[in-house]
Amino acid sequence: MPKVKAAVGVIDTLLRGVGQVMLQNNPMTGLLFLVGIFLNSHEYGLTALLGLVVATLAAAYLLGADQTLIRNGRFGFNGVLTGITLSVFLQWDWHVAIYIILGAIVSSIVAIVSTIVMMGLAKLLIDWDMASLTAPFVLTAWLLLFALYQFGQLHPTKLIHPMLVRPGATIQTGLQEAAGGGAVGLTAVNLANALFRGVGEVFLQDNLSTGVVFVIAILVNSRTCGAFALLGSALGGLTALVLGGDGVAIYHGLYGFNAVLTGIALGGLFLVLKWRSTIYALIGVIFSAIVFAAIVVALAPIGMPAHPPFVLTTWVFLLPMAGFRALERVSVAECASTSSLVRLRTPELTRAE
Amino acid sequence: MPKVKAAVGVIDTLLRGVGQVMLQNNPMTGLLFLVGIFLNSHEYGLTALLGLVVATLAAAYLLGADQTLIRNGRFGFNGVLTGITLSVFLQWDWHVAIYIILGAIVSSIVAIVSTIVMMGLAKLLIDWDMASLTAPFVLTAWLLLFALYQFGQLHPTKLIHPMLVRPGATIQTGLQEAAGGGAVGLTAVNLANALFRGVGEVFLQDNLSTGVVFVIAILVNSRTCGAFALLGSALGGLTALVLGGDGVAIYHGLYGFNAVLTGIALGGLFLVLKWRSTIYALIGVIFSAIVFAAIVVALAPIGMPAHPPFVLTTWVFLLPMAGFRALERVSVAECASTSSLVRLRTPELTRAE
Amino acid sequence: MPKVKAAVGVIDTLLRGVGQVMLQNNPMTGLLFLVGIFLNSHEYGLTALLGLVVATLAAAYLLGADQTLIRNGRFGFNGVLTGITLSVFLQWDWHVAIYIILGAIVSSIVAIVSTIVMMGLAKLLIDWDMASLTAPFVLTAWLLLFALYQFGQLHPTKLIHPMLVRPGATIQTGLQEAAGGGAVGLTAVNLANALFRGVGEVFLQDNLSTGVVFVIAILVNSRTCGAFALLGSALGGLTALVLGGDGVAIYHGLYGFNAVLTGIALGGLFLVLKWRSTIYALIGVIFSAIVFAAIVVALAPIGMPAHPPFVLTTWVFLLPMAGFRALERVSVAECASTSSLVRLRTPELTRAE
Repeated sequence: MPKVKAAVGVIDTLLRGVGQVMLQNNPMTGLLFLVGIFLNSHEYGLTALLGLVVATLAAAYLLGADQTLIRNGRFGFNGVLTGITLSVFLQWDWHVAIYIILGAIVSSIVAIVSTIVMMGLAKLLIDWDMASLTAPFVLTAWLLLFALYQFGQLHPTKLIHPMLVRPGATIQTGLQEAAGGGAVGLTAVNLANALFRGVGEVFLQDNLSTGVVFVIAILVNSRTCGAFALLGSALGGLTALVLGGDGVAIYHGLYGFNAVLTGIALGGLFLVLKWRSTIYALIGVIFSAIVFAAIVVALAPIGMPAHPPFVLTTWVFLLPMAGFRALERVSVAECASTSSLVRLRTPELTRAE
Repeated sequence: MPKVKAAVGVIDTLLRGVGQVMLQNNPMTGLLFLVGIFLNSHEYGLTALLGLVVATLAAAYLLGADQTLIRNGRFGFNGVLTGITLSVFLQWDWHVAIYIILGAIVSSIVAIVSTIVMMGLAKLLIDWDMASLTAPFVLTAWLLLFALYQFGQLHPTKLIHPMLVRPGATIQTGLQEAAGGGAVGLTAVNLANALFRGVGEVFLQDNLSTGVVFVIAILVNSRTCGAFALLGSALGGLTALVLGGDGVAIYHGLYGFNAVLTGIALGGLFLVLKWRSTIYALIGVIFSAIVFAAIVVALAPIGMPAHPPFVLTTWVFLLPMAGFRALERVSVAECASTSSLVRLRTPELTRAE
Repeated sequence: MPKVKAAVGVIDTLLRGVGQVMLQNNPMTGLLFLVGIFLNSHEYGLTALLGLVVATLAAAYLLGADQTLIRNGRFGFNGVLTGITLSVFLQWDWHVAIYIILGAIVSSIVAIVSTIVMMGLAKLLIDWDMASLTAPFVLTAWLLLFALYQFGQLHPTKLIHPMLVRPGATIQTGLQEAAGGGAVGLTAVNLANALFRGVGEVFLQDNLSTGVVFVIAILVNSRTCGAFALLGSALGGLTALVLGGDGVAIYHGLYGFNAVLTGIALGGLFLVLKWRSTIYALIGVIFSAIVFAAIVVALAPIGMPAHPPFVLTTWVFLLPMAGFRALERVSVAECASTSSLVRLRTPELTRAE
């Protein structure tokens, strides 16, 4: 039944695209991520699917991109994030659908640009592949969101609020659900929320249960990655607590998600863990929480979200490996094999199933 | 008469410099562009000439740059744009003349930097030449304009107006000449203005007749480029209309000029047109209008103009060609031969005339 | 006495780290720089030392970086600047100490990134080494400072003041110590302050005597560098005076420090001086004062300091050398030998002392 096989191949490709948002090349992980998103919101789930399908189709049919990259979900994941992000920050409308379709196509084009540039850099600087991570999503989503102030048909949600920074402003640092709401302080409930919402926010899902499902989804693929996701979320939130970050932001996982991805990338995937590289990964995770705060400030005058850029910290911390005797990098091939379903990756093996 | 020949060579070089603003390596096109600018304003025409001459002289005598690049006007065009831009956004004064001279020299230095970086990237990433486009102008003009707030001797014109973005602000979307002035809506006059001013704004010339002369100037060199210039202006404006952009901005061609250049670059010059690459070019043109809006917003807090950066879209859309089976790129040599006067290019042939 | 020798080696390494802030690979220069800083403020001196030691230790023990680079102080100087900058713009507190330690470590990581990228670019674009200058400090310090608005435990000093730019704002252009204080105008005292504070501000030291000590410190290593430091400070201030810059800012050397470093780099170190390259270096110095003003404006909405970025001008002006027949570059080896104490550089020679 070649049709069934083809359909399985397509679904496998799409689910890997969802999994790749957290660098997990595994369709089961991708499926659980989708479950987690729908658990939080049908709208976000549907826009994630729209972005996923359009970005993948654009790569395959409009752009004629490399088949192996497509099958590993390397185009889908930027579309997923672009779709969710535009629906989180814009009120739903058919203009938003057009915007997502355009954004998903452009994100695939930018993904190819990134792949070429990264391959070039890899050849030049270092002898291993440097992932472009979510950079295509970051560039595309930011440009599309910035533009919304100029377009009367696009209506921002309440999450978009420009603000003038004031050096003397008081920051409320009590960990809590909302300004003036819920128990305040380091209670078990508050800490659990900060921890799991931090994982959920990687997909912009501000929801405790979704975060729990996401952690399970990562554990299905790799225990190391799951552990570093939780460690990242915890350490990101802790950094903000120590430095006196806003308690509501910490509760909702905003200091966590960047640290989650940095933790997975540095701790779980790309570095061989010894004592030096573990310290190195932890410094990267702490710094990623500060980078998040810095980008919030940089974008405050136009009120744009700082969700995108974990890529900055990860790139900065991955590049030096060529120059550090103390660090050793996992080759990408080994990384990939952390996936228990990696045998599905090549076309031949997919067909063989 | 070697003196006459030398003078012809110099004038040829300078006129090509004007033509290169729209990627047209043709002295007749450059001459008509100049006519169009003087038609709109003697001041802008003179500052364009000042920038043109200084940038070309700096490249030839101070920097000793490559003769062939100089003769093809590859240094002059950044000077032209720097000169016009500084005179559009600053009130005329002898300080502005110094500023333009400095800016034109620096733009030639940056042009050499760009050429070197692009040649390096070309060697590394791709096997063809990647144009640096107007990037040198963008960097130079932005730095010089940003600085004006710090300098009491430089007085901005009314076009510089910082503004705080507000998510709920109403945008008037009726196509019209001015807020509260002229017929409102999709009238033939309004549409013609949007279309041709979009071409005029490439040189920052907000003038219907100038736009018409510019279109003729491009057609003199290449019918394909002329068609894509008009198509770009139309599609850029249409994108803004559909998304609810400001009607006055659309009327004055502000959504057009970026799209014009992107259209010429992607549709007219660098891609072999088949159905896939045509869709690709059109997506690039649509996206360039959104990028314009995004940069307006990013610069709104300091009130700086978003005129410069069509380069961003074009680079992003040109780079992937190495990775797309579906796209085929025109070699730069072929591109150049779209110019009917290309025989003037090499020193020997110039002398032979 | 191997212990004494080791201690001398460590001190030599640390002092070179201070000297490298102004590209002077000379421990005596570094020592005098430290004297100048302590002369102005014990707090800044101590935070400079904290940053210096942490950045150097991180490079040596955590990151296992190249020994020769470490011994030449190539990691220490970014730590010095990070330490001083964070203590200048944040009120002292144990959180600031943590912040400086984190910043110093990250600056060393970024320094390794820069070195790798620059070596790659050097291989690709040009056949000589391109210095990463203070780029690691710039990136690290900006991110750490931007973030302070989000953290209640970090309290900015009065030097941090966001401001909305206004095109019509009057700028007081009289050279003077403070708004409404001291003699106004081009008096000898005011000019001397502008000149020497310009050199002092390279280390963010707004102090006349410190500036004088710094000039002596540079002259100890190289008369050419000392002359270009003074010329840079003078020309930077003069550019601002001609264009009508704020007289208080000029008095306190804010238009000087960028120009000082650009002058040392272009005039003193990297270019063989002939008439063309001298003009070229002077244009670079003038432009660096304008770049400073541009970055002040770009960061005005969030009130962040524009101290960091002389690197931009210097990179832009150094890169073209590969393409300019008129310019000739000093090789890095020759540069280094401008240091009279260069024999201390290699491990063997250090031990031999």
